[in-house]
Amino acid sequence: MPLSEFDIIDRYFAPLGDWQPKTTVLGPGDDCAVLSPRADHQICISSDTLIEGIHFPMAASGRLAAERSLAAAVSDLAAMGSEPMAATGALTLKELSEPWLQDFSSALAECIQEWQIPLIGGNISRGKELSITWTVLGSVPTGRYVTRSGAQVGDDVYVSGWPGRAGLALEQLIKGEMVDPELLRYYERPAPRLEIGQKIRPLVSAMIDVSDGLLSDLQHVLHASNCGADVDVSALGFDATLGRQSRNPLHHLTLALSAGDDYELCFSAPVSRRAELESLAQASALPLTRIGQIVSTPGVVFSNLPNGIKPADLEGLTGYRHFE
Amino acid sequence: MPLSEFDIIDRYFAPLGDWQPKTTVLGPGDDCAVLSPRADHQICISSDTLIEGIHFPMAASGRLAAERSLAAAVSDLAAMGSEPMAATGALTLKELSEPWLQDFSSALAECIQEWQIPLIGGNISRGKELSITWTVLGSVPTGRYVTRSGAQVGDDVYVSGWPGRAGLALEQLIKGEMVDPELLRYYERPAPRLEIGQKIRPLVSAMIDVSDGLLSDLQHVLHASNCGADVDVSALGFDATLGRQSRNPLHHLTLALSAGDDYELCFSAPVSRRAELESLAQASALPLTRIGQIVSTPGVVFSNLPNGIKPADLEGLTGYRHFE
Repeated sequence: MPLSEFDIIDRYFAPLGDWQPKTTVLGPGDDCAVLSPRADHQICISSDTLIEGIHFPMAASGRLAAERSLAAAVSDLAAMGSEPMAATGALTLKELSEPWLQDFSSALAECIQEWQIPLIGGNISRGKELSITWTVLGSVPTGRYVTRSGAQVGDDVYVSGWPGRAGLALEQLIKGEMVDPELLRYYERPAPRLEIGQKIRPLVSAMIDVSDGLLSDLQHVLHASNCGADVDVSALGFDATLGRQSRNPLHHLTLALSAGDDYELCFSAPVSRRAELESLAQASALPLTRIGQIVSTPGVVFSNLPNGIKPADLEGLTGYRHFE
Repeated sequence: MPLSEFDIIDRYFAPLGDWQPKTTVLGPGDDCAVLSPRADHQICISSDTLIEGIHFPMAASGRLAAERSLAAAVSDLAAMGSEPMAATGALTLKELSEPWLQDFSSALAECIQEWQIPLIGGNISRGKELSITWTVLGSVPTGRYVTRSGAQVGDDVYVSGWPGRAGLALEQLIKGEMVDPELLRYYERPAPRLEIGQKIRPLVSAMIDVSDGLLSDLQHVLHASNCGADVDVSALGFDATLGRQSRNPLHHLTLALSAGDDYELCFSAPVSRRAELESLAQASALPLTRIGQIVSTPGVVFSNLPNGIKPADLEGLTGYRHFE
């Protein structure tokens, strides 16, 4: 007898709802879940759809699909400086593979614990392609959320972590090359910057997560803040792993500036916050790299290009995806 | 030049986010929307995915897709007795048709106003089939939400409105028959029972919305409440329109008991609440039909079957959809 939607939920998803923090009043299984927000907190909400063949490879393992999709969604909570509160997932399956569902479910269980984001509901349906839509909710002290629109002329521009590593791993995977395991985990299981996002919240003026590529996402901040940026290209060469594994300096730079799927944070902060940000970076063992400055002229200009690289080489790195 | 995801959002969806009530602190356009829940209120959340060819017909108009999909999601808020607060939508498009998007967007604008549910965010992606995932949030006074699990032995069982009409309209549509316009609107634009859901909230013991069929959804309540129901079949013949347009009494009953897509409310309430419920029904010009009673023995038994209809005729009306 084939498994029904309810059987699948009972077997692979209901157990994931067992862990609920105090903010969950009613977990999965009813018409709605019910949450009790913390006093003097507001709620951040974001929805993300990830589709097989676009956001993760065709025939992706259940683990990869779970980890990359939830990370992408949770990363938006980090970008607001919020703390995860709950997630609902809508999974559309192309076929019913119990091993795949088991793999998906186990990986999800790990992410739920690691990021402390309880699964409060969702649904399963059958379709022509595998897709996952997550809606994630976060909690932030009233009025303290960070938007894209607060960057001020003279602010520093930063990026967290190691932009470009996930993109290089994906390039190598697509070419069928051996991928360094260290590099691979940035692609397979990106770490949403939840902790650092909350820690830097009082220090930053604007923030976004890097999903489409650093330059593309920085431009969203600039557009929302009605300003521009002078990007110090030499600062982007700090990652020795990327330097060693990329083909040449231009490739290295292209990866750092335009590879998607990193889920790092790009943010602006007043110059007066440099020392505090540096301490936080050291305490968190996570680079917070100063990559430029906010200027009044809209758009991005590049400074300190390495020998042999011209500004024209870096045009077209905006990462926009067009409908064909 | 093809439209980008951002162009589509700017043209067809950003204007829908213009109306925001006071609970919205930050609307669409940033990494997250931000909501400020009302004091002493909790938040109800539900996600629903609707796929072309399953939940609405292939080649559905933008209007039909918008109205049916959002109604289905919002109906879960009604079933908790909650008031709509916000919605996020994830739209996967098979192709880019501007007339379809315009139609979808206009219909959505009407639903947003009619149901007073602001659009606070979402995303657009491209895939092999049209699908829409809504996540809806509602607000309910602390502790006053209605679950499926509160039905008590001796309680009455009710259903709102006109179960079966949407199903009959769909049957006639599929057969290419003329559909009575009065019947058609129950299918094309089901009315989530938001107002009555909030009004009856203090009177009812358990509630669910009818999406899979009355009998199927009633069974979810019985299962969650660990009880059974005696369904008075004669009470389900009250709808003269359905009586006139269905083929025979068994067809009429089958539609009322098992047709999906009605988005009526099925609920239980203590016998002591009969008079209040009757007044509310009259004041709202919406039938709240008493269709049976909660009993201790699990499962459903049928009473008062019309002449010529046997209990066996009504078996198999549980409405479960299986993965094939």
